Amino acid sequence: MGLWEKFLNQWHQKTSALVVGLDPDLKKVPPEFASPGKIPEFFGEIVRATAPFAAGYKPNTAFFLALGDDGIKILRATVERISSLAPDIPVILDGKFNDVGHTAEKYAQFASAVGADAVVINPYLGRDSIVPFLERDLDVILLCATSNPSFADLQGLDVGGKPLYVVVAEISARWSEQMDRRFGLVVGATHPETFGEIRRVAPKLPFLVPGIGVQGGTIDAAFRATMTEDGIPPMVVSARSVIYASRGPDFRERAGEKGREIRDAIKSLLGTG
Amino acid sequence: MGLWEKFLNQWHQKTSALVVGLDPDLKKVPPEFASPGKIPEFFGEIVRATAPFAAGYKPNTAFFLALGDDGIKILRATVERISSLAPDIPVILDGKFNDVGHTAEKYAQFASAVGADAVVINPYLGRDSIVPFLERDLDVILLCATSNPSFADLQGLDVGGKPLYVVVAEISARWSEQMDRRFGLVVGATHPETFGEIRRVAPKLPFLVPGIGVQGGTIDAAFRATMTEDGIPPMVVSARSVIYASRGPDFRERAGEKGREIRDAIKSLLGTG
Repeated sequence: MGLWEKFLNQWHQKTSALVVGLDPDLKKVPPEFASPGKIPEFFGEIVRATAPFAAGYKPNTAFFLALGDDGIKILRATVERISSLAPDIPVILDGKFNDVGHTAEKYAQFASAVGADAVVINPYLGRDSIVPFLERDLDVILLCATSNPSFADLQGLDVGGKPLYVVVAEISARWSEQMDRRFGLVVGATHPETFGEIRRVAPKLPFLVPGIGVQGGTIDAAFRATMTEDGIPPMVVSARSVIYASRGPDFRERAGEKGREIRDAIKSLLGTG
Repeated sequence: MGLWEKFLNQWHQKTSALVVGLDPDLKKVPPEFASPGKIPEFFGEIVRATAPFAAGYKPNTAFFLALGDDGIKILRATVERISSLAPDIPVILDGKFNDVGHTAEKYAQFASAVGADAVVINPYLGRDSIVPFLERDLDVILLCATSNPSFADLQGLDVGGKPLYVVVAEISARWSEQMDRRFGLVVGATHPETFGEIRRVAPKLPFLVPGIGVQGGTIDAAFRATMTEDGIPPMVVSARSVIYASRGPDFRERAGEKGREIRDAIKSLLGTG
């Protein structure tokens, strides 16, 4: 089962489109988990607490690499933990991978070995940087309009009267048709003005929407984009505000509460709450 | 000492601008090194053989991640090996990193911990995805026109009458001035038609030129771009054709010969041979 089927199953079961971002940071985890080797266990607790409200988990490669020598092992153990506790919830490995074909193949090998269902990719190198991931049956989510303040430096450039991010969405939609695979698009909650124009040119590509919470976006903004034309809701990413809801002994409860809160907000925005 | 000073020192000593790409592949190393733990030792031999002709080493993150659980440790040990055998030769960590600020900081932390002098970055997220690397005193080389066949899918888009890669070069030159740091630009040897137009808008930014050898580019093509206006030659990347010149017991000699050959070609192209 691929990313989209897994995600839609979760959505239908839970009316939640929450994707919990897993960004390990030894300074922010509860003190009893503040060593690299304890990270999979910490995330195991987070998964137990949030699984009733989560439709996806998104470990962030950079944070695992920064853990040091055992970063890859810790990432793999974290994904194993997710898969054993919540086997039906898809895992999206965020790494914004991008490279020429034979190197992209190595990233694909890495993502497969880690146990991911899908990857986040930067499309700047074009089509042949994406193919190796598809060949390993990884689903692909492409950067389109990212959530950071300087996103428009390049993404906002005028390409024949349209911002580059709209053209990237058009190209992604075309690739998706040509390769007969559904791609996702990263569209930051911090730039809600982009939602409509991206949705218009890529009606079938689901959004992955980061930037809720700490980065300042709101769930309301994220959901203005609503669904794809065939009913896939945006994947609403929240990382720090869920996983670091508390550093105290109540961290599980607080993470669960935060997950429930986001799920409830999604439900009510969609009129099903 | 930063990347550019180190690289120029090497250039002046050796009249070589060769940057040896380190892409570990267990299927291509000599059989006695065909296990992940043996990779730093293999690259130690490669460094010993090629250091007289090398002006830089460029380990490729993807290939190390694909080695499995110990990939980060093996990468760090490889860079340690380079630094102890050839302390004056700069190390460029290729990873084409790109992410929002607080995540880019984690990649910067990773690259610093590994011991790199510089990193290769994908500029799609704009200026605030670059700053964290500069703050850790890492030099930055930005993707501009990559060496792969599909590079033009996005990089060739028409932005006000110029291809996107030219506009990326312009923006990079502006950032470089504003941040008072010299950046490099990745310009593939496989697209020599891009050299002149990029050089024109970014006269001070040195090129990192991959795609020599296996990917089909020629050194001649790479050098048509010649120098920056202040005399920094393009960094000519060769990976597989040097490090995997032989799998037999003569692999050291063959890697050294290949390094010498590229150095000699550079010398003669610049009229100093």
